[in-house]
Amino acid sequence: MANNPRVCVIGAGPSGMSFLYHNNKLKVAGKKCADVVCYEKQSNWGGLWNYTWRTGLDEHGEPCHGSQYRDLWSNGPKECLEYPDYTFEDHFGKCIPCFPPRTVLFDYLQGRWNKSNLRNLVRFNTMVKNVTYNKDTDDFTVMVKDLSIDEDLSPQRFSNVIVATGHFSVPNVPYFDGIDMFPGRILHSHDFRRAREFKGQRMLLIGSRYSAEDISMQCRKMGSGKVICSYRTKPTGFNNWPEGIEERLLLTKVVGNKIHFKDGTTAEVDVIIFCTGYLFHFPYLSESLRLKTKLEMYPAGLYKGTLWMGDGNNKLMYLGMHDQYYSYTMFDVQAEWACAVVAGHLQLPNRNEMGSDITKWRKKQDLLNDEYDDIAFQTKFVCDLAREVGSKYNLDVAALFNKWEDDKHANIATYRDQTYTSVFTENPGIKHHTPWFKAYDDSLETFVNQTPNK
Amino acid sequence: MANNPRVCVIGAGPSGMSFLYHNNKLKVAGKKCADVVCYEKQSNWGGLWNYTWRTGLDEHGEPCHGSQYRDLWSNGPKECLEYPDYTFEDHFGKCIPCFPPRTVLFDYLQGRWNKSNLRNLVRFNTMVKNVTYNKDTDDFTVMVKDLSIDEDLSPQRFSNVIVATGHFSVPNVPYFDGIDMFPGRILHSHDFRRAREFKGQRMLLIGSRYSAEDISMQCRKMGSGKVICSYRTKPTGFNNWPEGIEERLLLTKVVGNKIHFKDGTTAEVDVIIFCTGYLFHFPYLSESLRLKTKLEMYPAGLYKGTLWMGDGNNKLMYLGMHDQYYSYTMFDVQAEWACAVVAGHLQLPNRNEMGSDITKWRKKQDLLNDEYDDIAFQTKFVCDLAREVGSKYNLDVAALFNKWEDDKHANIATYRDQTYTSVFTENPGIKHHTPWFKAYDDSLETFVNQTPNK
Repeated sequence: MANNPRVCVIGAGPSGMSFLYHNNKLKVAGKKCADVVCYEKQSNWGGLWNYTWRTGLDEHGEPCHGSQYRDLWSNGPKECLEYPDYTFEDHFGKCIPCFPPRTVLFDYLQGRWNKSNLRNLVRFNTMVKNVTYNKDTDDFTVMVKDLSIDEDLSPQRFSNVIVATGHFSVPNVPYFDGIDMFPGRILHSHDFRRAREFKGQRMLLIGSRYSAEDISMQCRKMGSGKVICSYRTKPTGFNNWPEGIEERLLLTKVVGNKIHFKDGTTAEVDVIIFCTGYLFHFPYLSESLRLKTKLEMYPAGLYKGTLWMGDGNNKLMYLGMHDQYYSYTMFDVQAEWACAVVAGHLQLPNRNEMGSDITKWRKKQDLLNDEYDDIAFQTKFVCDLAREVGSKYNLDVAALFNKWEDDKHANIATYRDQTYTSVFTENPGIKHHTPWFKAYDDSLETFVNQTPNK
Repeated sequence: MANNPRVCVIGAGPSGMSFLYHNNKLKVAGKKCADVVCYEKQSNWGGLWNYTWRTGLDEHGEPCHGSQYRDLWSNGPKECLEYPDYTFEDHFGKCIPCFPPRTVLFDYLQGRWNKSNLRNLVRFNTMVKNVTYNKDTDDFTVMVKDLSIDEDLSPQRFSNVIVATGHFSVPNVPYFDGIDMFPGRILHSHDFRRAREFKGQRMLLIGSRYSAEDISMQCRKMGSGKVICSYRTKPTGFNNWPEGIEERLLLTKVVGNKIHFKDGTTAEVDVIIFCTGYLFHFPYLSESLRLKTKLEMYPAGLYKGTLWMGDGNNKLMYLGMHDQYYSYTMFDVQAEWACAVVAGHLQLPNRNEMGSDITKWRKKQDLLNDEYDDIAFQTKFVCDLAREVGSKYNLDVAALFNKWEDDKHANIATYRDQTYTSVFTENPGIKHHTPWFKAYDDSLETFVNQTPNK
């Protein structure tokens, strides 16, 4: 029997950990699997869910991965990201409400990882500096630095590389005329940590997607002054903003603390927060291995949204690089598929067929018109992967996503107070004791213990 | 005649530009010199003097180099950093006051660089990713990325590498118990941009060196609430802090917005600013080329404070890696020395002698007791290099530095109102129209044009 493939997983967030999880499942089942090393820059696993108070650069002088803020509650129902083989009920032993604070979701993730004893597969405080593909030997050379001792380690060789470092960590910050002389504070949502810091301050948020939507609500909840969200192409589409939040066309320039907008209006603000999204940034990958894309439902160059076509080696894979409705479960089924390919349980078609398959999906992407279309599209993608890999689970939660969109559009301030039913347990989530907009206690203990045990 | 050495200069700040300047001087004089390529990550030259409104990561997703704040005025007299062959009077055509705002100093620097037409030697928006030494060919391979097109360029070979990326760009941010739950804003002085942002806010500054000293003064000048500077080993030593600034022993923990100090006292604050210095961080250098040091007057491993002994090749040099009193002129004479070595005008002694020389300086360093000792030590270092390289200039401004220390200790709020006499022009700087603590107009025009032309 040939040696196991030696796989490098970069990043121990939900995507990378899903690869470790499914590879372990193969191992436990006595099937061919990979020998995996997972490098994680941070001192703990969890990726974005490993909250940090730091901003900018971390304790080792490297870019902070974390983009979460302290007051974050899930902006989608937990029933839309629940693992079929490890439900929230499995983890907490009871039903809980549907929009958990970040600590609750992190706890849930860790439960699944701990159950499979995956922690010893992760090398923490270890940063991947460089990955190159060796054509002659059909493998990769990976350069890593041990941040805890500030030292490069000797080069490592791997047969496959799994890129699982996400794409919500490196801020995209465009320039606006005059912003360099704005007298107030300027930050990107990546560096937003505590909504309470903005008490009483008049705010401009640039952007109209999830960050603008949620940070505006968080800031008002915590007592900020008025908030203006400024959009480039289209507004959020919500009609029921609470008092003190409004939307305007994009700003055109900044003069002192006065913002000028395309519609001719002006407003004085104290703070500008860029909610302008993130860059796909893989500084450690050599040119031919590097995905270059904007945020899309189906980025080019990735077969099954996962396998990198660029270098022709079929040995580099990306997890979770899509614009996301599905998250944990999508990463998980991608990882399961990647494990099956790496271990040789799934055969890839030839490159022409793979190219055609990508084209087919991207043509469908061109026809998407709204969020509901997007949800249907991504549901197909997730279910297609599940079928390919022979999963026994039906991961389709499109109906829940559609309800969530309805709820949000009905009222952006109350959508987190709604309940959803798990497709796996068939039990409904319970109603949270306090409406989200007035709920200031986001501790795991309070959230989880508000109902009697089952 | 052998080919010119091909030299890679990393960074187009004062240090790197001084290398280009002196190499150009050799060229103009018809002497043997190097063919130089200077890579600069930013879109303009100036290093720290290229002010940016950005913090954290830059427009390309790379760490922001800039650490300057908008309201910065020089914290030392310009007479202590003046180039002997290009004085402030040469540049501005008249005498000006002694503590210029940042725009005035940047203008001065650019005058010298423009006069020698150095701009076309710099490749802007180009980041060095990796430098390795090739033992077989006794040269370096340098990997660079063109940030403007988001693409790695083909590897470049160089006979020598000059590291001129400074050491005040990557923040050192230690952890304190409870800081992750502090409800207010936390930042490092690296990300401090506008003192006005802190109007009315109660501030804790952690540190007792230049950043703490100046940011506390800046914030009070611009209307902040009270400021506490918290020191680990010793206080700043200033007795005449203006009202509203005090010093305390190091904090021990943070509980909510209450800070606990070693002396048993507590204080509630709204903002914590880390003035805890910077890391020596050269992520692009391979392990054997990399200087690892704390801030010292004479870091280990650098012959004449400049030539890297670590790899045994005598072809890698560092500029400006010392704890600094002298700045522009020290970088300049280091660069002049480096140019002479690279071009073969100066012969290096053998490695034993170089090692002994370093040991000699470092033994002297061990005997330094206070700032005045440091100044004398660094004066000797600068003058020693000038003599080695056959400079016709006497760079000794120790008397000015000593007066500056006296003035600061006499009154930290008024030291910038004092005047100094240029050792090169022998003309005194003129008195600024307004005491610094009440001067809100920091424009170049106002600063330069307050006196009639000569």
